[in-house]
Amino acid sequence: MTVRVGVIGAGMIGQDHIRRLTEVVTGAAVTAVTDLDQTRAAEVAARVGAMALPTGAELTNSPDVDAVLVTSWGPTHAEHVLNALAAGKPVFCEKPLATTAEDCMRILEAERAHGRRLVQVGFMRRFDAGYRQMKQVIASGALGAPLMVHCAHRNPDVPESYTSAMAAQDTAVHEIDVLRWLLDDEIVSAQVITPRATSHRFEHLKDPQIMLFETASGVRIDLEVFVNCQYGYDIQCETVGEKGLTRLPDPATVAIRTARRHTTAVMDDWKARFTDAFDTEFREWVAAIGTDGEPTGPSAWDGYAATVITDAAVRSLESDGAVVTVDMKPRPTLYGGTA
Amino acid sequence: MTVRVGVIGAGMIGQDHIRRLTEVVTGAAVTAVTDLDQTRAAEVAARVGAMALPTGAELTNSPDVDAVLVTSWGPTHAEHVLNALAAGKPVFCEKPLATTAEDCMRILEAERAHGRRLVQVGFMRRFDAGYRQMKQVIASGALGAPLMVHCAHRNPDVPESYTSAMAAQDTAVHEIDVLRWLLDDEIVSAQVITPRATSHRFEHLKDPQIMLFETASGVRIDLEVFVNCQYGYDIQCETVGEKGLTRLPDPATVAIRTARRHTTAVMDDWKARFTDAFDTEFREWVAAIGTDGEPTGPSAWDGYAATVITDAAVRSLESDGAVVTVDMKPRPTLYGGTA
Amino acid sequence: MTVRVGVIGAGMIGQDHIRRLTEVVTGAAVTAVTDLDQTRAAEVAARVGAMALPTGAELTNSPDVDAVLVTSWGPTHAEHVLNALAAGKPVFCEKPLATTAEDCMRILEAERAHGRRLVQVGFMRRFDAGYRQMKQVIASGALGAPLMVHCAHRNPDVPESYTSAMAAQDTAVHEIDVLRWLLDDEIVSAQVITPRATSHRFEHLKDPQIMLFETASGVRIDLEVFVNCQYGYDIQCETVGEKGLTRLPDPATVAIRTARRHTTAVMDDWKARFTDAFDTEFREWVAAIGTDGEPTGPSAWDGYAATVITDAAVRSLESDGAVVTVDMKPRPTLYGGTA
Amino acid sequence: MTVRVGVIGAGMIGQDHIRRLTEVVTGAAVTAVTDLDQTRAAEVAARVGAMALPTGAELTNSPDVDAVLVTSWGPTHAEHVLNALAAGKPVFCEKPLATTAEDCMRILEAERAHGRRLVQVGFMRRFDAGYRQMKQVIASGALGAPLMVHCAHRNPDVPESYTSAMAAQDTAVHEIDVLRWLLDDEIVSAQVITPRATSHRFEHLKDPQIMLFETASGVRIDLEVFVNCQYGYDIQCETVGEKGLTRLPDPATVAIRTARRHTTAVMDDWKARFTDAFDTEFREWVAAIGTDGEPTGPSAWDGYAATVITDAAVRSLESDGAVVTVDMKPRPTLYGGTA
Repeated sequence: MTVRVGVIGAGMIGQDHIRRLTEVVTGAAVTAVTDLDQTRAAEVAARVGAMALPTGAELTNSPDVDAVLVTSWGPTHAEHVLNALAAGKPVFCEKPLATTAEDCMRILEAERAHGRRLVQVGFMRRFDAGYRQMKQVIASGALGAPLMVHCAHRNPDVPESYTSAMAAQDTAVHEIDVLRWLLDDEIVSAQVITPRATSHRFEHLKDPQIMLFETASGVRIDLEVFVNCQYGYDIQCETVGEKGLTRLPDPATVAIRTARRHTTAVMDDWKARFTDAFDTEFREWVAAIGTDGEPTGPSAWDGYAATVITDAAVRSLESDGAVVTVDMKPRPTLYGGTA
Repeated sequence: MTVRVGVIGAGMIGQDHIRRLTEVVTGAAVTAVTDLDQTRAAEVAARVGAMALPTGAELTNSPDVDAVLVTSWGPTHAEHVLNALAAGKPVFCEKPLATTAEDCMRILEAERAHGRRLVQVGFMRRFDAGYRQMKQVIASGALGAPLMVHCAHRNPDVPESYTSAMAAQDTAVHEIDVLRWLLDDEIVSAQVITPRATSHRFEHLKDPQIMLFETASGVRIDLEVFVNCQYGYDIQCETVGEKGLTRLPDPATVAIRTARRHTTAVMDDWKARFTDAFDTEFREWVAAIGTDGEPTGPSAWDGYAATVITDAAVRSLESDGAVVTVDMKPRPTLYGGTA
Repeated sequence: MTVRVGVIGAGMIGQDHIRRLTEVVTGAAVTAVTDLDQTRAAEVAARVGAMALPTGAELTNSPDVDAVLVTSWGPTHAEHVLNALAAGKPVFCEKPLATTAEDCMRILEAERAHGRRLVQVGFMRRFDAGYRQMKQVIASGALGAPLMVHCAHRNPDVPESYTSAMAAQDTAVHEIDVLRWLLDDEIVSAQVITPRATSHRFEHLKDPQIMLFETASGVRIDLEVFVNCQYGYDIQCETVGEKGLTRLPDPATVAIRTARRHTTAVMDDWKARFTDAFDTEFREWVAAIGTDGEPTGPSAWDGYAATVITDAAVRSLESDGAVVTVDMKPRPTLYGGTA
Repeated sequence: MTVRVGVIGAGMIGQDHIRRLTEVVTGAAVTAVTDLDQTRAAEVAARVGAMALPTGAELTNSPDVDAVLVTSWGPTHAEHVLNALAAGKPVFCEKPLATTAEDCMRILEAERAHGRRLVQVGFMRRFDAGYRQMKQVIASGALGAPLMVHCAHRNPDVPESYTSAMAAQDTAVHEIDVLRWLLDDEIVSAQVITPRATSHRFEHLKDPQIMLFETASGVRIDLEVFVNCQYGYDIQCETVGEKGLTRLPDPATVAIRTARRHTTAVMDDWKARFTDAFDTEFREWVAAIGTDGEPTGPSAWDGYAATVITDAAVRSLESDGAVVTVDMKPRPTLYGGTA
């Protein structure tokens, strides 16, 4: 059975996911597209034989839409997800689930009222082969209990609109999600310290930042976020346990020896780095939705947790590096908790 | 438009490609299956909602089949490919195209009579990301003219049915094809020398073998074929040019440090190593077939060349390591030649 | 001219340096040995044709001793160094220079009174080929200004006598020295945070520890100290600048592929890891002493700085991870400062 | 006891070894120097407080010379070594031992007449840490019996005086020696094939060359010799056994990430690559000579074997790649044989 997907938001990421659902992933079809820019919606829809609809609500409620994909502007996510929950339809929401903890809570409540999961949040790292291997190694017990994680998240550069708070909200949020999952543990505090800033940045921006997290079981995470590192897109992660460590591989690329140098390539951006992860993310989502309608990837709870943890990191940044406790509600049973 | 594929041969590799065409690659559907074992054909067909047909000929001529995939026993390939050519339908044939040079020639003649390409041969390495990067590096001129290629093709072990000649026919054939493509050059001679044999093999088998090839432009290739190497499935390739070299990467896997050792995994088998290459091979084949019907991957000529080159290698093996000239006809214009 | 060295302290490290001065480094001879255990002193001295003397003072003042090597118990270092300064003889003192900042200051004053350098402190990492390459890369400007350094210092295990404060005093002190030199910058604050402790340690010990340092120019350093990591002796260092990074290499060791694993060895201990650095350290010391008597390696000021920085780290550890400002006096002109 | 060494030949390599014996290695002193260019001999001798003597014979027979180091022009080696044997003095002879098999045989006979070893030949690779680790791995049995060795020996470029035969005589000779030792096996045939030549070479030179060797036990060795590879000095060696392989490490150098590239350095020349091996070679030679006068490194037999094997390789090159059997006499008992 083909899952008929309606897409809300036809910008760059929306178009990329439409291509993915159409050309890469089997079992899905994009049947409807909407966008604030209706001309764009029409163009994008026409390319894949979908209809263009004027609003997210109409799209969500269309009988030709089995599941909703939200790739619109962040502040609109909550509304679209709530609409999908009201319609009882599965919804894949690009991160963030919502821009405030309150809106995340409203979604959690609506989903709990529905009684089973409908929401998946677009944290693609859980679908990356390297992180999955790391999780297997950790879960196998080969390293003993995890004690520390060292990470780096580096981009060559960012546009002027990027703010200091986005280092947590847009960038570190990926590590926040993947480490919660990797460690099967919860982050309970955050601290952000600011090294000397690079001269290769806009004046308003604190870059790089070093983020320190502590988990419920006492694991300490340090994360370098450096969004104007110039040299490339580079993701590093090393988990140290009681008996050993495991390290995320760099992507496999050919080695070249010329002119007294052995070189391998560093990637340009996240799209190249996580192409396979995105493909797997949607392949598994479509398979789960198509089978019993309940997604198996990052949940609304994971979206909520990411939001409250990034909130804590931003508060630390704004309070000169103070340690900020994460203000997280108890986890409901729907999401594996006891509340 | 969905390409409706009929599959001849429902063994392990046939089933894997049926899964690939059904679950992994978009734009295709398997509509018919045949196999000598009709029960098996029926079971496999039922799984994907295809019809089971009694013979390859019926399958090829079915109006519900747009393109044919041949994954049957090697000696039957030529007949099925010729049938497809007679029906004017695109045909993807797993290697070998045919088991004799004569049969390959009959296919070439039939395809030339048809006037455009219909045949693609299943050499998947051309679709591997690492080889493609190597080809880009070589084609860029960064290394100067290629002079030598050092390769290794290692399997942990093989079944008793594996013969010394299969080292060329079944194993080295992958390097033979990919190196012709990588270098954009033709192999003109072959020589096989036999080191001391490993004790981990069946008595009848010469293993390992070292194969030496020379190309038309004078590039020398050495290839270690070691099919009972015990330690894993390991593919190495290094091209040395006038100014530098490029080397195929090992697959990216997490590193682990425990017990005084830094370790990464070596793969078990070719299926894991070339999963992505197989997916890309079929994705591109379906896209090409679905667009204008003419495939862009390895041609019948490439299948013929691989057969005559492996023939030369086998003759060298059987004549105590003599240098054997490849007996290759001039390349027809349909395949980029001048004949 | 042969430099005649008198050695105070004939324990394990003293004996190793005696061997080094006798068998590895040219231009030196060990002419006198003393130790609290006079029998041991006599045995060790006899092995290399040196005299055994009853006290450090007699050894220092012997006319057959041109330079003094202090490898005795840490709390006695200051006295021996001050004696050598009083005698106007070059002295190589294993770390620590002294166990208190006050004793370090007395040494600095005595050396300044002498008017030129006589003291070298045994921080061997500055002589390691990898760190020297890193320093060249940083100094070349290829990375832009340094912004962050990520380090790890891991031992397989430590004896029961090892205390939580020794993580800074005995272990991190090597990074503290080498990073001050690598960055040509001063450390101004220290903070120690304690992850969940490994179960593979004595009850009294906080292990691992994460140490955070800030330098005068704002570089942020994070250092994992993990002295019961089980898996091996492992030193990591990565300096991130505005345009790129440089990373300390792992020692070169043969790769082995067996049983589905690609493995390289992780070292057992610091002696194997830094053998070449120790050899170079003494080779350069002997060459400098033999030429004009003034050492070129880590100075008494570096010894003082290491002591006050480790003091700050220990205070942070004892005050639950507070950020502690390093209480460092202005640097005198003799040591490149302005005081 | 200091070993007093007389040096015959004060050219570049002679001066480098004089520096090594004087500044790097303990237990030796250079007491006499001779050279065809007597002015040069006098200058070099003066630098280290040695006497300059007019001829090799006088130097060898001087009562102030305990051992002789031959670093003169290759064709003079045999005479100097025979003189040392006549004088009953240990002699270290840079490769080649002699330029003809006949001269090597005369040396072997003279040494056998003496009754114990006096000669060591300057094959420094046996003292390289990486090769020594490989030998340990092979000897441990972890790989099973060795079956194949893949090697490359690459130089950035060579002077115009370098001839095609020197690819074997001067370049491959290092692999020939180190592989005989690594495998504890004898080379029985040689074959040289010539790929398309690089355009970066003098017209008279066949470069690169691929050399194939077979050992008595059937191990097959392939060796790429490429002396104008442009990109750097690069030594590769991989030994494949029945259960696994071991690979020589590249030298440890810092990694740098800048401008979308991860890079490590490739070396410039053999001096940098094998500095430590040379130091160890002379350290062990002096230690052995100083202890009981009998060297433990490569013997006159090894020098003879290298000569007859390179002769076979050159004959193969001159006969268009024919397989040439090595014409080696039975090994005398003095060298571990039975003749």
